Amino acid sequence: MELFAVPDLPEIRPDDDLGTLIESRVDLQPTDVLCVASTVVSKAEGRAASLSAFPAGPRAREVAARLERIHGEEKDPRFAQAVLEESTELVMEAPFLLTETRFGHVCVNAGIDRSNVPDEDLLLLPERPAESAARIREAVTAGGVVVTDTCGRPFRHGQRGVALGWDGLPASRDWRGERDRDGRELGVTVESVVDELAAAANLVAGEGAGGTPAVVVRDFDFGDHAGSESLFRDLDEDYVRQALRGWSFDGE
Amino acid sequence: MELFAVPDLPEIRPDDDLGTLIESRVDLQPTDVLCVASTVVSKAEGRAASLSAFPAGPRAREVAARLERIHGEEKDPRFAQAVLEESTELVMEAPFLLTETRFGHVCVNAGIDRSNVPDEDLLLLPERPAESAARIREAVTAGGVVVTDTCGRPFRHGQRGVALGWDGLPASRDWRGERDRDGRELGVTVESVVDELAAAANLVAGEGAGGTPAVVVRDFDFGDHAGSESLFRDLDEDYVRQALRGWSFDGE
Repeated sequence: MELFAVPDLPEIRPDDDLGTLIESRVDLQPTDVLCVASTVVSKAEGRAASLSAFPAGPRAREVAARLERIHGEEKDPRFAQAVLEESTELVMEAPFLLTETRFGHVCVNAGIDRSNVPDEDLLLLPERPAESAARIREAVTAGGVVVTDTCGRPFRHGQRGVALGWDGLPASRDWRGERDRDGRELGVTVESVVDELAAAANLVAGEGAGGTPAVVVRDFDFGDHAGSESLFRDLDEDYVRQALRGWSFDGE
Repeated sequence: MELFAVPDLPEIRPDDDLGTLIESRVDLQPTDVLCVASTVVSKAEGRAASLSAFPAGPRAREVAARLERIHGEEKDPRFAQAVLEESTELVMEAPFLLTETRFGHVCVNAGIDRSNVPDEDLLLLPERPAESAARIREAVTAGGVVVTDTCGRPFRHGQRGVALGWDGLPASRDWRGERDRDGRELGVTVESVVDELAAAANLVAGEGAGGTPAVVVRDFDFGDHAGSESLFRDLDEDYVRQALRGWSFDGE
């Protein structure tokens, strides 16, 4: 398996055809998986925004005021408003905003980026990353497309690449019923392939000024396994999320 | 960046010199990172064990009885005993055992594997995976070694590769203070490189009978960044873990 960055992508602007821009810069093959950072997908989809587009309502002012008290620094209530509008739930309100986005992804601040966006204040995540991935796939020879982001996680330091949307491959490969060398059923059952592809791509992509937002994964072998489409857990089988519902930060 | 499996590794037995077995099967380079599944590290370190080695104390019997009630199926209290002995804390007791291992990794059942282990009941994780990685690195030409496992996570379905121990490279690369194309500070600050390497390797390694437990990552460029050594969060900055401390499963 080989990974390489798509070279020389220009700064992406609204209505750019991202798939065509990528296709013209690299000799893609039908078995390739193309990983594209959500930042450039968002830019192409016109998801850069000004803080002034998010006049803060009472809830956003309340949330921002609490974060100001906790962190002892100014928090723009319009940013909190943007986070609220992009979320279906605040999983945590303090000491930071952990949210579920409208497409089911749990992350800090609804994934809204305040760097990487020229001439605007904010870059919102793509509205429907699975559809973004499908649109890009239509324009490229690669058989699979994964729209990626980076985010943190409980228990472990640091951020790693994750998948937000994908098309042309299942989210996971399913080892259930398969056996080890001694014929015992495997303990590991469902492997989140799209997240692992996003993590691998992030090793190559980098961040910031020198970053390359599109990475080709060549010769990844999905193998002869069943696939599964779901990546984001529902609340009823996510005990950590249930625990967070009943928890309140008390470091104030 | 390229990844390939180390071919033809035999079934690993206690006291096998894993590094030498790998070194003789592949032409490693000093810039390679070698990812080795904890299953074979554990086997080489004699961490296969019998359930009979873990006579259940009162706490293990209590924990197993609760899981039996919840799941309506028999739970061996000796397995619970093994999990307790391998853990410093039960982060969750129900509906499954989420534990912190002695080396700081939060995972289900202290990472104890009940498949992949011939002639024994259990395979415990390596006791000190960072030391395991250092030992393997002494025997191989690769400049970095990561001991990997697969585990699940909150919010997202499926398992993905993670690092348990590493040597010869930092756990993370630190983008703090670096800037985007417009000169703004990057939102992403610390990238968990060893976890991303483990995830990438897991795409190539597979599981079970056809699995290949050692994967070479070639031409990974860490780049000119500061590194950071810590991977496992401390409780005081892990709000999810704090929330789980105060939570109790009530689906009984």
